[in-house]
Amino acid sequence: MKYSPEFSVQWLPFTVMVLSISITGTAAGRFDIPRLSPIGGAIIENSDLLSSAAVSDDFQTFYYPQTLDHFNYQPQSYATFQQRYVMNFKYWGGANRSAPIFAYLGAEGPLDGDLAVIGFLIDNAIRFNALLVYIEHRYYGKSIPFGSREEAFKNASTLGYFNSAQAIADYAEIIMHIKKKFNAFYSPVIVIGGSYGGMLASWLRLKYPHVALGALASSAPILYFDKLTPRGAYFSVVTKDFKEASETCYRTIRNSWSVIDKIASQPHGLAILSSKFKTCEPLKDSFELKDKLENMYAGAAQYNSPPTYPVTEVCRGIDGANEKQDILSKIFAGVVAYRGNRSCYINQPTNASETDVGWSWQTCSEMVIPIGIGKNTMFQTAPFDLNGFIQQCVSLYGVPPRPHWVTSYYGGHDIKLILQRFGSNIIFSNGLRDPYSRGGVLEHISESILAIHTVNGSHCLDILPERDSDPEWLVRQRETEVKIIKGWIAHYYADLKAILIKH
Amino acid sequence: MKYSPEFSVQWLPFTVMVLSISITGTAAGRFDIPRLSPIGGAIIENSDLLSSAAVSDDFQTFYYPQTLDHFNYQPQSYATFQQRYVMNFKYWGGANRSAPIFAYLGAEGPLDGDLAVIGFLIDNAIRFNALLVYIEHRYYGKSIPFGSREEAFKNASTLGYFNSAQAIADYAEIIMHIKKKFNAFYSPVIVIGGSYGGMLASWLRLKYPHVALGALASSAPILYFDKLTPRGAYFSVVTKDFKEASETCYRTIRNSWSVIDKIASQPHGLAILSSKFKTCEPLKDSFELKDKLENMYAGAAQYNSPPTYPVTEVCRGIDGANEKQDILSKIFAGVVAYRGNRSCYINQPTNASETDVGWSWQTCSEMVIPIGIGKNTMFQTAPFDLNGFIQQCVSLYGVPPRPHWVTSYYGGHDIKLILQRFGSNIIFSNGLRDPYSRGGVLEHISESILAIHTVNGSHCLDILPERDSDPEWLVRQRETEVKIIKGWIAHYYADLKAILIKH
Repeated sequence: MKYSPEFSVQWLPFTVMVLSISITGTAAGRFDIPRLSPIGGAIIENSDLLSSAAVSDDFQTFYYPQTLDHFNYQPQSYATFQQRYVMNFKYWGGANRSAPIFAYLGAEGPLDGDLAVIGFLIDNAIRFNALLVYIEHRYYGKSIPFGSREEAFKNASTLGYFNSAQAIADYAEIIMHIKKKFNAFYSPVIVIGGSYGGMLASWLRLKYPHVALGALASSAPILYFDKLTPRGAYFSVVTKDFKEASETCYRTIRNSWSVIDKIASQPHGLAILSSKFKTCEPLKDSFELKDKLENMYAGAAQYNSPPTYPVTEVCRGIDGANEKQDILSKIFAGVVAYRGNRSCYINQPTNASETDVGWSWQTCSEMVIPIGIGKNTMFQTAPFDLNGFIQQCVSLYGVPPRPHWVTSYYGGHDIKLILQRFGSNIIFSNGLRDPYSRGGVLEHISESILAIHTVNGSHCLDILPERDSDPEWLVRQRETEVKIIKGWIAHYYADLKAILIKH
Repeated sequence: MKYSPEFSVQWLPFTVMVLSISITGTAAGRFDIPRLSPIGGAIIENSDLLSSAAVSDDFQTFYYPQTLDHFNYQPQSYATFQQRYVMNFKYWGGANRSAPIFAYLGAEGPLDGDLAVIGFLIDNAIRFNALLVYIEHRYYGKSIPFGSREEAFKNASTLGYFNSAQAIADYAEIIMHIKKKFNAFYSPVIVIGGSYGGMLASWLRLKYPHVALGALASSAPILYFDKLTPRGAYFSVVTKDFKEASETCYRTIRNSWSVIDKIASQPHGLAILSSKFKTCEPLKDSFELKDKLENMYAGAAQYNSPPTYPVTEVCRGIDGANEKQDILSKIFAGVVAYRGNRSCYINQPTNASETDVGWSWQTCSEMVIPIGIGKNTMFQTAPFDLNGFIQQCVSLYGVPPRPHWVTSYYGGHDIKLILQRFGSNIIFSNGLRDPYSRGGVLEHISESILAIHTVNGSHCLDILPERDSDPEWLVRQRETEVKIIKGWIAHYYADLKAILIKH
């Protein structure tokens, strides 16, 4: 979804907000929490995925009058908003046969792009005779409470309903509504999500086992909260990815920061850097440049997908520069290799996307993923500064985050001890080159709460559309997942039969 | 907790409210939902339980600054209130030994009475070396948001936060707080509750497995929602209880309603009935009388506990009346046998208790337990009138109930199919003479989600204090429960050891 010009003007305050929270590498430490979307922004721009034939007339759009607040009975809690969901009946075996339902749980963005990007559903629809459902997350796309985005995002009083517990309850209600509407009471539901949406999928299975039989949680860092995962893990993996791609590339990047600092501290240093990196606007400070580079490397690692492998692309640029060139020219060559030929780089003006705006609130309320940069990476150290983060959220929204709520409501501590005898039917899939994978579940918890990961994979690869160019390990990961889900469903049908016979 | 006179005056509007919602046997059908407390009002009055030695100096009172709304981030959601909890360390084996914690989850009333009445904790404290915790439910006793009961119960805007999901989150937070405060991270927690509190215990285990290892849910009718349980089941059991106690008593009661109707329809009929039943005030209509009798029989059946067995007492009165007496004299003899010698009966003026006031809201928001009276009971038929109930709630509070939310959030449909491969460590205990038992879980669901019931038991007997007069079947029920819980804890310690060795 693109903003119309009017819309951009309307949303200018939020653009500022979001950019201000993106400032990271200050002396105080990091505040930025990397995105948790199945695919990265750069990939969306270039990808052929969006033009996929998957989005056809078979997809029908519906709206459900959703309750604003499921956990409160104040009069205003009863307000409803139209929540969008999309269904595809083409492959469904029908309610009579209790054929399965695959429900994709939308994440921090409009649903539109997901229909084509989340290939797992359409690719497996025939194999399972599955009804496909895609549900949009509240406060994104066309699923906006309070009548308009302007009202919905006005302040904490209207944003307060924008959180994961409400979103999961939304999904549960819509799934139950669909089962009722189509008399599909005994159709097993598999919920599928990627990244933040993957967390929602696993949590929905845990909180509403009567709604979903199982969950495929792709690249869901449900353990990147509180102190469950070392805060520096994310950038350690980014570093590892680059080092494995190219030792020289890694070293060039590692050495570049002090060179940037040194030039920035000289007279006209920022002008020199601006010129060197062909910035779209003069740099305001060196942090701006370092931030953008850091985010670029992080994005390349997180979305380091075949066949192009962005990390390799960046390093090809860096390593491919003339030996005699200075270090920043090499870095810039990496930028060009990644971004392609453009009129300018680094700080091109952009409007804040819905994801920028929405995720900013979500990280400032409950999704406090405390990513910092520790020692022994290719970056300058920058610990996550929780107090600074909280202050920044208060100044943006007037309310502080609740950084411990995710582990309070969903758990996470000693997850194996807790879940090895509780719960079932969740796949936590990861690619170990994805820096977020370190906050994922990487070991089997029980016979049916399983960790399926690939050594070479990156973020959410398994739920993206199957392609001829897919490497063997990715094909096998998907096959394993399909086999596991088939097993859950077979078990379920056997249970159902036994119970129906009994009664 | 008794009301001071000032308090009664202050709460007069609510007295009226509660009484008005207690009107049941109108032509439109039933609106009344029987109480869900571990012990009945009549028993509290007479019981020696409250003077138990259990309430000693070993019980210390604490307050936790509880979040008003766990599922919303509006500024007002961050308000806190002081939530009361009580602890007893006397028998605890300590954090070093990861000794267990027993947490009693308060239900729809002040916590004060529960300390002595819920004997299961203190009776088993030594056997388990357990730390005892009793937590009060929000909006009861001393755990009142908004600074005062007057403010908290003002209208739906302040009552909106008064619901089970918030209450369970409260309990989870306090338990986590205690574990942290006393470094008892690995102490297994068993949550215990009776009736509505038993529902909360089972739901807490299902929603927060990382907080509670297991739950003892005594007389928890988690299936008396929507159409999961036949609506007439409750009064069918009341009828059965009386019939089993005495066929003549049952027949006398069954025949009494038309006699009341007939007299009421005569000139001065209400005066005749008022005199006959020595009412404290002249009867306003015959429904008032029939209602009180109906509630008395229901209460006698629900709390039909040894050694006195109130159903037997009522029937002893009815059957013991002179053969030649008219039918209503016999019924009145039953009233006297149950209530004892008083100056007047039936409509003695009472102040609405905290439970009356609180449960009225709870049933009008989410706890819609649709109890009606079907055919073939000893009562006049009175179907549960959902629409009438909704209208009455709207007129009382300005908002309608959400009658499907309990099954949406907690499940209930096809519970065996859903939970036989999900979840663990819940005991659903029931006494089959308790009319609420029909909405309970009466069959084992899995190896560790178990139904333990007694044929002769009534409401919540197993968690009341052990007494020398306890019948053998009750002693055995408790022993079975203790054995099961010991098994859970042993499994847990073995798991813990295995994990600690590994790391």
